[in-house]
Amino acid sequence: MRDVAVVGTGMTKFGELWGRTIKDIFVEAAHKAIEDAGVDHIDSLYVGCMSPGLFVGQEHLSAVVADYLGVTPVPATRVESACASGGAAFRQAFLEVASGASDIVLAGGVEKMTDGADVTDTLATAADQEYEVYQGITFPGLYAMIAKAHMHQYGTTREQLAAVAVKNHRNGAKNPNAQFRSEVTAEQVMASTMVADPLRLLDCSPVSDGAAAVIVTSLDVARKLKKSYAKVIASAQASDTIALHSRESLTTLNAVVHAAQKAYKMASLKPTDLNLIEVHDCFTIAEIVVSEDLGLFEKGKGGEAAAKGLTSLECGKTPINTSGGLKAKGHPVGATGVAQIIELYEQLTGRAGSRQVKNARRGMAQNMGGSGASCVIHILEGQ
Amino acid sequence: MRDVAVVGTGMTKFGELWGRTIKDIFVEAAHKAIEDAGVDHIDSLYVGCMSPGLFVGQEHLSAVVADYLGVTPVPATRVESACASGGAAFRQAFLEVASGASDIVLAGGVEKMTDGADVTDTLATAADQEYEVYQGITFPGLYAMIAKAHMHQYGTTREQLAAVAVKNHRNGAKNPNAQFRSEVTAEQVMASTMVADPLRLLDCSPVSDGAAAVIVTSLDVARKLKKSYAKVIASAQASDTIALHSRESLTTLNAVVHAAQKAYKMASLKPTDLNLIEVHDCFTIAEIVVSEDLGLFEKGKGGEAAAKGLTSLECGKTPINTSGGLKAKGHPVGATGVAQIIELYEQLTGRAGSRQVKNARRGMAQNMGGSGASCVIHILEGQ
Repeated sequence: MRDVAVVGTGMTKFGELWGRTIKDIFVEAAHKAIEDAGVDHIDSLYVGCMSPGLFVGQEHLSAVVADYLGVTPVPATRVESACASGGAAFRQAFLEVASGASDIVLAGGVEKMTDGADVTDTLATAADQEYEVYQGITFPGLYAMIAKAHMHQYGTTREQLAAVAVKNHRNGAKNPNAQFRSEVTAEQVMASTMVADPLRLLDCSPVSDGAAAVIVTSLDVARKLKKSYAKVIASAQASDTIALHSRESLTTLNAVVHAAQKAYKMASLKPTDLNLIEVHDCFTIAEIVVSEDLGLFEKGKGGEAAAKGLTSLECGKTPINTSGGLKAKGHPVGATGVAQIIELYEQLTGRAGSRQVKNARRGMAQNMGGSGASCVIHILEGQ
Repeated sequence: MRDVAVVGTGMTKFGELWGRTIKDIFVEAAHKAIEDAGVDHIDSLYVGCMSPGLFVGQEHLSAVVADYLGVTPVPATRVESACASGGAAFRQAFLEVASGASDIVLAGGVEKMTDGADVTDTLATAADQEYEVYQGITFPGLYAMIAKAHMHQYGTTREQLAAVAVKNHRNGAKNPNAQFRSEVTAEQVMASTMVADPLRLLDCSPVSDGAAAVIVTSLDVARKLKKSYAKVIASAQASDTIALHSRESLTTLNAVVHAAQKAYKMASLKPTDLNLIEVHDCFTIAEIVVSEDLGLFEKGKGGEAAAKGLTSLECGKTPINTSGGLKAKGHPVGATGVAQIIELYEQLTGRAGSRQVKNARRGMAQNMGGSGASCVIHILEGQ
């Protein structure tokens, strides 16, 4: 396999972009990434998107965006793994460049969620329709069950869940592309509207529109471009049972454990070698469980770690979600995995402004789909 | 890039499989392929599917099928390029094995179209929603415009269109997995119900359920398995404008032309070196246009060639759609591209029974999405 690097990034602001179409926002992010990378062409493109069919009535999105971006006849392919679609699209770009088939590939992700479709119903199609959704479950419900089990098994508290939201909003306030740039207090989180006990409104990532894109090249091409790049030192993916009730434990996400093990092995690293991690905090409990399943904290200790500030930008050993995470940056589902890669690139190339992690050398992006049935993990290393 | 081979195949019968679910039929095809290949595990899987969200309310299909196939935690990814989803899934499996990241990858495709969704509306999401679909166009309408233009420019006749359907039904009658195993006459085609002038019911591929899967390995692994394999000697993909009205010509499919050129170059072959071709005959006119754009016949001569029998199994120089094509075999859209690979494998390994092309050594599969905005082409070579 050839060595692969990220050489440029672009994204829209995440939020409720009512006046814009899915094509429009993808093209904005892609143009920015191409310009940032300084490449004069792309060999192919991938677009991660969960459900353009249900959200905006448009399948075949790959051809749509290739057309509106003006890059036909390059190969264009949509990749879908629910909320891990962006990470999966990045992985396919990585594999295409690693194979030697292409030198310069655009990996993008997009979702337009505010155009009128029933968002909760559409997102629920990422769960098992037959055995979960038809019985009435939704994603807040699934993660609420995980939270209840984690509280029961490990004594995780309501305050610890709130600490994740407080931290991610504090980071998001420093991110110009974040949907929410306002800080929140633990009291506000715990007094916000109940969604699915114990999860309240401020425990949940929002409904968002947005697009993100990165340019992936061979390491040789990256060096010739004579600009900052980040090397992709691990790409790993894993699956788990689609339905929560099929798992041995509600509080361990096996796909995260497996993908992390593969990623650490590929990069010859251990968790403590990482300088920052972007994790898939679709709900506050998800960040806690994932921080444990990545091996950063002992099982059951993720909540305590968050409450102690061990994952904060200010005093954290390994800051988590410096971008604001899904919670504050926003979660246009197909774009999320690519936006995580963008945060790593910004941090590893010293462009993260007031969010900059000092001496950031290695970062991980952990993107997942459904209640964790898909997980894609990448580790990037700065020069 | 490493050399890549197909070592085993499996598919369900195509047709109206009312009593079965999308999971069920995918698992059947995948199990058959695994058993046929004689492999004891897979390293990852891809599933091509156009719209499980709209057809059956299930996105995140990759995790669903990995779970029900019992192969978690292997990476599982869905690939979508409308009706080219199957070919695109096969290409991603090819790239993953070629890269060296995996040795044994399952490439599958599936669609469940008869579960109650509005099929014409759902398929229309593969066209440009904003500028085509919202104005009332459907796929029979788009291909009817292509047919009208082809008749006008080149004198292609109604009889020539019918010749494609007659041939493909004759081939399909010999395929145990085909949806339609009945021959039709030119008179029957030309007397069938008008759908979109000049296309009649028997010019159109049917609405189908079905699944198909193949096992893709490195050439080294294929040799060690000590069974018949076919080497993938070309994989190429291209895009075109999503909307028909944006194209310079209605009668040339640029994505087909570009992908074919790349494929011939990669395989160091010319069209006449091929012993059989599976083309994407979603409508009879599509087979005619594609046979020209692949360089098999001069532009405008595809209809005449079909009427003369030049593409027939019996007396054809380069038989097209020995499987019966989409027209007779059926067109469960996500499965189609993978089923084309299966026909090549069966022919190149001498397992095609009464459809066998004598001394078949090299075959091409041409799979496309929408009105040709995506095209994926593979060339396989027998041992």
